[in-house]
Amino acid sequence: MEETNQSTYALLEHIHLPKDLRALPLEQLPQVCEELRKDIIAEVADNPGHFASSLGVVELTVALHYVYDTPYDRIVWDVGHQAYGHKILTGRREAFRTNRHFHGIKPFPSPEESPYDAFTAGHASNSISVALGLALAAKSKGERRNVVAVIGDGSMSGGLAYEGLNNAANTPNDVLIILNDNNMSIDRSVGGMKNLLHRLQTSSTYNRWRDRTARKMVSWGWMSEERKNSIIRFNNSLKSMINHQQNIFEGMNIRYFGPTDGHDVIELVRTLRIIKDMRGPKLLHIHTIKGKGFKPAEKGGAIWHAPGKFDPLTGELIKCDETGLPPKFQDVFGHTLLELARANENIVGVTPAMPTGCSLNIMMDAMPDRAYDVGIAEGHAVTFSAGMAKDGLLPFCNIYSSFAQRAFDNIIHDVCISKLHVVLCLDRAGLVGEDGPTHHGAFDLAYLRPIPNLIVASPMDEHELRHLMYTAQLKDCGPFVIRYPRGRGSNADWQCPMQEIPIGRGRRLKDGQDVAVLTIGPLGLAAAEAIRQVEAERPGFTVAHYDMRFLKPLDERLLTEVAACFRRIVTLEDGVRTGGLGSAVLEWMADHGAAPRVVRLGLPDQFVEHGSIQELHHLCGIDVEGIKKALL
Amino acid sequence: MEETNQSTYALLEHIHLPKDLRALPLEQLPQVCEELRKDIIAEVADNPGHFASSLGVVELTVALHYVYDTPYDRIVWDVGHQAYGHKILTGRREAFRTNRHFHGIKPFPSPEESPYDAFTAGHASNSISVALGLALAAKSKGERRNVVAVIGDGSMSGGLAYEGLNNAANTPNDVLIILNDNNMSIDRSVGGMKNLLHRLQTSSTYNRWRDRTARKMVSWGWMSEERKNSIIRFNNSLKSMINHQQNIFEGMNIRYFGPTDGHDVIELVRTLRIIKDMRGPKLLHIHTIKGKGFKPAEKGGAIWHAPGKFDPLTGELIKCDETGLPPKFQDVFGHTLLELARANENIVGVTPAMPTGCSLNIMMDAMPDRAYDVGIAEGHAVTFSAGMAKDGLLPFCNIYSSFAQRAFDNIIHDVCISKLHVVLCLDRAGLVGEDGPTHHGAFDLAYLRPIPNLIVASPMDEHELRHLMYTAQLKDCGPFVIRYPRGRGSNADWQCPMQEIPIGRGRRLKDGQDVAVLTIGPLGLAAAEAIRQVEAERPGFTVAHYDMRFLKPLDERLLTEVAACFRRIVTLEDGVRTGGLGSAVLEWMADHGAAPRVVRLGLPDQFVEHGSIQELHHLCGIDVEGIKKALL
Repeated sequence: MEETNQSTYALLEHIHLPKDLRALPLEQLPQVCEELRKDIIAEVADNPGHFASSLGVVELTVALHYVYDTPYDRIVWDVGHQAYGHKILTGRREAFRTNRHFHGIKPFPSPEESPYDAFTAGHASNSISVALGLALAAKSKGERRNVVAVIGDGSMSGGLAYEGLNNAANTPNDVLIILNDNNMSIDRSVGGMKNLLHRLQTSSTYNRWRDRTARKMVSWGWMSEERKNSIIRFNNSLKSMINHQQNIFEGMNIRYFGPTDGHDVIELVRTLRIIKDMRGPKLLHIHTIKGKGFKPAEKGGAIWHAPGKFDPLTGELIKCDETGLPPKFQDVFGHTLLELARANENIVGVTPAMPTGCSLNIMMDAMPDRAYDVGIAEGHAVTFSAGMAKDGLLPFCNIYSSFAQRAFDNIIHDVCISKLHVVLCLDRAGLVGEDGPTHHGAFDLAYLRPIPNLIVASPMDEHELRHLMYTAQLKDCGPFVIRYPRGRGSNADWQCPMQEIPIGRGRRLKDGQDVAVLTIGPLGLAAAEAIRQVEAERPGFTVAHYDMRFLKPLDERLLTEVAACFRRIVTLEDGVRTGGLGSAVLEWMADHGAAPRVVRLGLPDQFVEHGSIQELHHLCGIDVEGIKKALL
Repeated sequence: MEETNQSTYALLEHIHLPKDLRALPLEQLPQVCEELRKDIIAEVADNPGHFASSLGVVELTVALHYVYDTPYDRIVWDVGHQAYGHKILTGRREAFRTNRHFHGIKPFPSPEESPYDAFTAGHASNSISVALGLALAAKSKGERRNVVAVIGDGSMSGGLAYEGLNNAANTPNDVLIILNDNNMSIDRSVGGMKNLLHRLQTSSTYNRWRDRTARKMVSWGWMSEERKNSIIRFNNSLKSMINHQQNIFEGMNIRYFGPTDGHDVIELVRTLRIIKDMRGPKLLHIHTIKGKGFKPAEKGGAIWHAPGKFDPLTGELIKCDETGLPPKFQDVFGHTLLELARANENIVGVTPAMPTGCSLNIMMDAMPDRAYDVGIAEGHAVTFSAGMAKDGLLPFCNIYSSFAQRAFDNIIHDVCISKLHVVLCLDRAGLVGEDGPTHHGAFDLAYLRPIPNLIVASPMDEHELRHLMYTAQLKDCGPFVIRYPRGRGSNADWQCPMQEIPIGRGRRLKDGQDVAVLTIGPLGLAAAEAIRQVEAERPGFTVAHYDMRFLKPLDERLLTEVAACFRRIVTLEDGVRTGGLGSAVLEWMADHGAAPRVVRLGLPDQFVEHGSIQELHHLCGIDVEGIKKALL
């Protein structure tokens, strides 16, 4: 950290908790913002993490803690990668240098870490539903606490946010939703307090009229209470828009304020003070600039979302030399998909708001008409893919494993019941490292295996990924899942010719006598290394290694061989032990009257914390050392 | 069926397929509607099924098949319980008397059954996403087919519908969404073609202006293509509402037509003909009356959604004598929850639009301030419950098992990571019978078991359900799932005093020597009967019976006893064999070095069709006969 002399953080270094902030006069807040911004820049330049989002909400963060009585009042951060300023102001400034480290500060807000973190954040769009729940709890306990949800315009595209809004509209509550809008540059600026207060008046008049009318109709016996509520609900959500020509939030019975400048901290404080004690659900729409205050980030694109190390003065990214390194799995996916799409005109690509993260942008650039970014909307991404598959297209729908949990019903109901040929590519499967428990792709093997009609595969390396992708599009084999991890593979020379893999066919990588190791996915490489070491250390002891490739259907020929030849089996997977590959092997053995001793390696029945992938693999006993232990 | 003489169905009996309908002159359509309505009433009166929804869309159904070239054009019915008229007009009039029977006509549209059924229906809110997928597939294949989604105002509250709308707004397509609005009685009728066409003009002018402006800014280098799309997307979804004061659909770039009378078939045909060839996404808002044409259903409430047998002339419901029958599980839930809530002030009830179906209406009537119907929004229901639990309330959130698939990520991310004390009651767990594969609660045991921090239990009878509900609210034991089936229990005398059950504690119901049967849930009663019969038939052969009660945590004391005493184990569950109780038992045995022979009874690795629950249990080998086979 440069510039850590006293004058740089003259105010910030005396803010240990929000109460210290609240003791400052209003006019000092711009300086607090400046210092906080500098601190975030200095910290993240040196210790990589999410960046531009937190810079964008510096003023909002300061204003919220200044106006609201946190932690008694609740601030619910949606997604939570914008909460660095919040963490620094709430007693974690010193600890912040351990941000995202193993046993260090968590990557997202977590009530386990601090009472100022009102709720678990990580997956987008949950903040409105949570805030409504917190508000009703407070009300029922007679607490007068305020509840604020801070949600970005991106998260607003998730269906959960809409469901939350819809319910907030027809349930008595005083929640404030802050729509942090950093995506819009062409916009008629109509903000300012005058306009705001004018709107307030019109909307409250209208809402009062509507409620009174409905109550009268009930009292006259013209309609039932139940009917009234359902009418108001629908009226709220859609219809009043049509008939009354109002904005969507007011149409939903939610008072709307703004838009206002999210970087004017004084104005934000004034606005929040006015809104704070108003009854009823309300929404404040603020405009911010992602990366505000750090020029390269203000201009730059997706890279500044989580830039890695950089120079805090010049903004120069500090790059490691990557020549000769194996590619990332996501890039192998991206390039291979384009290659396949060039040869197979039915292929289309689908991503819910992760084109850069999953490298679908490679296809989007080359074939903009055949690749769809549908926004943060995992459920829709899958059902939309199912619709396309129904009439002859072949969607490769790419979703991060943990986010695909959002599409679980869509996979069952819209894809698998009709056995539609959708190829679902799950990136970030297994432990993802620093993003922690909300982002680990720990459950996919276990939650996909019970679904009928589904093929589930995982490649051991980049060549296998290419073969599986090639296989998945060769003919209509129904729904096909390919799951692969975050990060780099193992072959710098990844561009092999592609081959068909018979569906459900694993492979014996190595012969052996004493134990059979059955692996799925890239952990197979760790197993191979463990086997080499064990055989070297204990002459005469030999281990066979099978790469299952497919969790479903299982390779029965291979399992028959294993059951016949081995009394001891070790299974290995980068997913929960409960219900995954090991469980599948046990089921098969039981169904076929075999009873070998099976040791199942995988993730424990608990949420795994954050840290480097190596540290976490070690923690879970699925690194070379852990595998060796299980073999001996 | 009364009145089946020729004159009653003079037109209908000559309509074997929609092409026959299309051969009629427009002015005969009202008569077709009248006949179709009579036919539906006669059929459903005699052979129970969904009722009021199909009556409400008779005119729409006729108009759609008259105007559109089905099955080349695609009609996607949301939910699908309104599709009886559609089934009758599309070659299934004769077969319709087998509606919902084992091997008969399916309860919902299914492409497996007919090419006129464009997509699987059953779970709400998927139609817009599907229609968009079908439309893009057609476009890419150079087909000029039309795609229509028919969605009710209830389904519109689901987040998936919003995600679909949002994406339809920013993707070039010509989908027609028909909003079938039967929930609104006070409404300013502003419809009619004149107004409709006026709206059309204004909206298309505006949309053209916006697209042109954005394209120009790209061509001048003022913004990138990617930025343009993201701006348009957000603009579509929310912001243009604020700035341009339009209705929500036009704000989303979707042309809006209506509202119009959904029971005027001539007008509907005219409207659809005008809209049909218009480019771009569009929405037609129609008003209909649920139960239209059958007076008792027009007035009556939820009962006419699926009324059971009734007199087609008088509307009198044909009731079976229910005295002395055991109660439905749902009613035991409903009454017990109210009882518990009276004693525990933290308890609140939550249901996503199923108050009658799950009997939460009992609590809603008695304690309207403590029970929430959040609309069709399963994800929100769970996250909202999590929010309430975070600040000290104790939500009992009731969701049908198969719909809870929609909330899978919410259970993991919002409830279990933070170990929040939410009691999730899954009604309709296991095979549900006539509603078929979309509604079977087949997967819950398997998809919940891998989730850390979760308690998963299932009661064998009503007394056990009461004990489990009592136990779940006694102290903060974290997230607690109680799953129970559709239909009646086994004890007419269900109102027992409630007792605490130690968490994770099963029970030995019967001693035995040769086999141990481990069951979970009410199938335990079938197992008990099978054991009685087997022991009677084969003297000297004795079977022990354990009711596990808890899938998670497993009763290790009980399993230790079983492992020590038995070489043969049979597990039994009303859920998929893959990953469920049987799998849990195998895992435990493997982890503890035991290797009994385990036969796992449960649902097969395929989607189970529709039929009576008895027929389906027999089909899957989990009835008394199937269990006996496994024992011997």
